[in-house]
Amino acid sequence: MARFDLHPELLTPDAFADYGDVIAMDGADKRVINDGTTIRYHDLAKIDVADENGRPLVSIFRASAVQLPLRLWLMERHPIGSQVFWPLSAEPFLVVVASAGPSPNTGDLRAFHVPPGTGVNYARSVWHHPLISMNATSDFMVIDRGGNGHNLDEVRFPDDTDVMLHGYDASKS
Amino acid sequence: MARFDLHPELLTPDAFADYGDVIAMDGADKRVINDGTTIRYHDLAKIDVADENGRPLVSIFRASAVQLPLRLWLMERHPIGSQVFWPLSAEPFLVVVASAGPSPNTGDLRAFHVPPGTGVNYARSVWHHPLISMNATSDFMVIDRGGNGHNLDEVRFPDDTDVMLHGYDASKS
Repeated sequence: MARFDLHPELLTPDAFADYGDVIAMDGADKRVINDGTTIRYHDLAKIDVADENGRPLVSIFRASAVQLPLRLWLMERHPIGSQVFWPLSAEPFLVVVASAGPSPNTGDLRAFHVPPGTGVNYARSVWHHPLISMNATSDFMVIDRGGNGHNLDEVRFPDDTDVMLHGYDASKS
Repeated sequence: MARFDLHPELLTPDAFADYGDVIAMDGADKRVINDGTTIRYHDLAKIDVADENGRPLVSIFRASAVQLPLRLWLMERHPIGSQVFWPLSAEPFLVVVASAGPSPNTGDLRAFHVPPGTGVNYARSVWHHPLISMNATSDFMVIDRGGNGHNLDEVRFPDDTDVMLHGYDASKS
């Protein structure tokens, strides 16, 4: 029996750079529009879905809350499209990713704590765990790819491998 | 001096069909995913931004609140791209639209009350007033078109024309 303990680190653009974009208003390109009545925080993620057969899909995901520590079970990737998750509640959430490659390497997993008011955009082919909502059932706006083409790979962790995701401890970040 | 008084009607997909999509979880195509932990409300809007020079932009708009009645001043349209507005607060908002055509006809304006948990997607070329937030400064996730090409027309109402937008009165809807 192998066991891996994953402790989330705080999400930052630098730490997440190999996996995609951090979506946030802080540091964004701000533009005053509509005769001064609105500020546009412009172009927050590299949406990568519009190949010749692809089109952007807007969906809402409603995720059940999990208890931590959580035994992770599944990693997935979208080989031909990016995927945005933007939280519609004020709850933080957790993401777990692994570097690109033919399959996710258990020793290569990283977990990130995503603070309220922040989203992520997984770059194409980045391995990630399905949505992990804490505290309460939570909704997320999702922008990913629709259209023909193979856009989902899934890999389950072996039964004899426990990958345990723990809660975020700000004092250790 | 000409005066037009606009009274919002409740947003419904049928009433809004000529202008674009109502984005809502009610009535959506629901799919259970991620081994039963998540429900996907699938493909909620016809995103129409990915022509040969276009790409999807994700931005956040922060709109100042207005006082009603509001004298409307400006209509705009995006001739080569759709535009999603999804509210990130629990506040309702108002949209004002006019039928497609070379310029918005003042007598042809319609106003809609968008209840909390609901968004809109303006179809390309649909005339609409800039974002109208009530009650409090509010944030919206916006998905529109980036890339080269002429994608903004604006028309201001004449000084001698007062187009007054009133609050939504549910008892009259």
